[in-house]
Amino acid sequence: MIISVIGAGECSEKIYEIAENVGGLIARGNAVLVTGGLGGVMEAASKGAKEAGGITVGILPGFSKDEANKFVGIPITTGLSHARNTIVVRSADAVIAVAGEYGTLSEIAIALKLGKPVIGINTWDNVEGIIKVNTPEEAVQKALELASKKE
Amino acid sequence: MIISVIGAGECSEKIYEIAENVGGLIARGNAVLVTGGLGGVMEAASKGAKEAGGITVGILPGFSKDEANKFVGIPITTGLSHARNTIVVRSADAVIAVAGEYGTLSEIAIALKLGKPVIGINTWDNVEGIIKVNTPEEAVQKALELASKKE
Amino acid sequence: MIISVIGAGECSEKIYEIAENVGGLIARGNAVLVTGGLGGVMEAASKGAKEAGGITVGILPGFSKDEANKFVGIPITTGLSHARNTIVVRSADAVIAVAGEYGTLSEIAIALKLGKPVIGINTWDNVEGIIKVNTPEEAVQKALELASKKE
Amino acid sequence: MIISVIGAGECSEKIYEIAENVGGLIARGNAVLVTGGLGGVMEAASKGAKEAGGITVGILPGFSKDEANKFVGIPITTGLSHARNTIVVRSADAVIAVAGEYGTLSEIAIALKLGKPVIGINTWDNVEGIIKVNTPEEAVQKALELASKKE
Repeated sequence: MIISVIGAGECSEKIYEIAENVGGLIARGNAVLVTGGLGGVMEAASKGAKEAGGITVGILPGFSKDEANKFVGIPITTGLSHARNTIVVRSADAVIAVAGEYGTLSEIAIALKLGKPVIGINTWDNVEGIIKVNTPEEAVQKALELASKKE
Repeated sequence: MIISVIGAGECSEKIYEIAENVGGLIARGNAVLVTGGLGGVMEAASKGAKEAGGITVGILPGFSKDEANKFVGIPITTGLSHARNTIVVRSADAVIAVAGEYGTLSEIAIALKLGKPVIGINTWDNVEGIIKVNTPEEAVQKALELASKKE
Repeated sequence: MIISVIGAGECSEKIYEIAENVGGLIARGNAVLVTGGLGGVMEAASKGAKEAGGITVGILPGFSKDEANKFVGIPITTGLSHARNTIVVRSADAVIAVAGEYGTLSEIAIALKLGKPVIGINTWDNVEGIIKVNTPEEAVQKALELASKKE
Repeated sequence: MIISVIGAGECSEKIYEIAENVGGLIARGNAVLVTGGLGGVMEAASKGAKEAGGITVGILPGFSKDEANKFVGIPITTGLSHARNTIVVRSADAVIAVAGEYGTLSEIAIALKLGKPVIGINTWDNVEGIIKVNTPEEAVQKALELASKKE
């Protein structure tokens, strides 16, 4: 099972902590974590998952695996810039959005377009279709539940 | 100058008429029209531009130019599915969103991420950064004005 | 009808002249020219087509239309780097390769994989499936003939 | 370290066996295996690596992870069709081509364009730049050696 965590490349300490917890719970739920592989929320989720012994994949926008944060175990170098966002969500059985800005909104929109479950914490309001939750625990529980229905 | 019109592949008659007017005004403003090349808003804008003597480019998601609506003069066949959305907005000096659903939202978000001017008619509310207008005339005037500042 | 011309971003004067003639003949054959939009063979073909009054599309690898050569009338900015090569050949009803290096070889291979007619002048030897010709006239005549069969 | 194995989606028993050995040796060399995730050579290499306890990534062209062969541990669903080929080679520190047809040739060409080491067994002749070897052992030894220089 693959869970993607999406969110901005820079974030507050509070959001970092939330994303790190989300990552840890994904790994403990025996799911593979996919992110965009860069900093901020992507790094935090990868850190949480990696330190919990999980597999962490980073779908990188640029030309070198050196741009991956240090918690990405499997860097996939696309060279596609923002078009790699579609791969991050297509590969997922469920998507968890933590906060996020325009890039994250584009991923949420593609995920909803593709019919993927999208769970959101502190993320875009007013986009119908996002399942809003308040804690990392709720987010990952919901994601694992909906992802296993998908399978 | 290139103006992209984004919107859903199916739409009401009222939205079709708006998009057709937008397309016509783009052609009369001597700008090239880029769309995703399919039906609904994409077709309506292409129809308007084509019948006003303009150049109409369709950035198609699939594997054959046969999926283009009949008002696309230059079909570009990408085979990239939704990832082609990034090309539609990257190629534009300004983007006009007419109504639209999740696919359109993903394009709006990428356009704003890329710093492109996004003008909206009857489209997603509550996404900060969209310049809201009420008529095709305002939309195209604003788009041409902002696109020429970009150049 | 769309004919793509592929070849390296830098080339000798002799190859430039061949590509320029190919471009001119494509425009006179009322076909749209698609190239990768950069220098060398891409520029030469665009120059030939543009000066003959044709439509010239450039499928650019980078992030700005400023990287297009000055004979590209319609710059399509993909941001996909080498992955844009697949779009150059997918959009074509026939492909003409003029000389070329590894990038061109990748386009030839994808075109043959997709079942597109590939006509070659001074290009890769030993790749079965390329229709070898000796002059721009033969190349464009063959391309137009095979492209019209495709339609 | 990531080694990509490229080759056709259908192959003879002899080629399957070679690719399976290549995959096994990659896993025993503690490298991650990346392939295009489908049948033939991609399946054989994934089988070899999986059964040797390795990590197997499949960069899929289509819209569902169900198209992955059963030895792919981490399916990445791109929806990009042949444009996913560039990701297969970009992600690699070294590329091993086993036999292969036009699709493989396109990957070889992109890999050489990107300056990646390309090792070939029973593959395209007459493409300068491919390091020709005769056995799975030589192929993987050479790949690991050149990949570690890259790092």
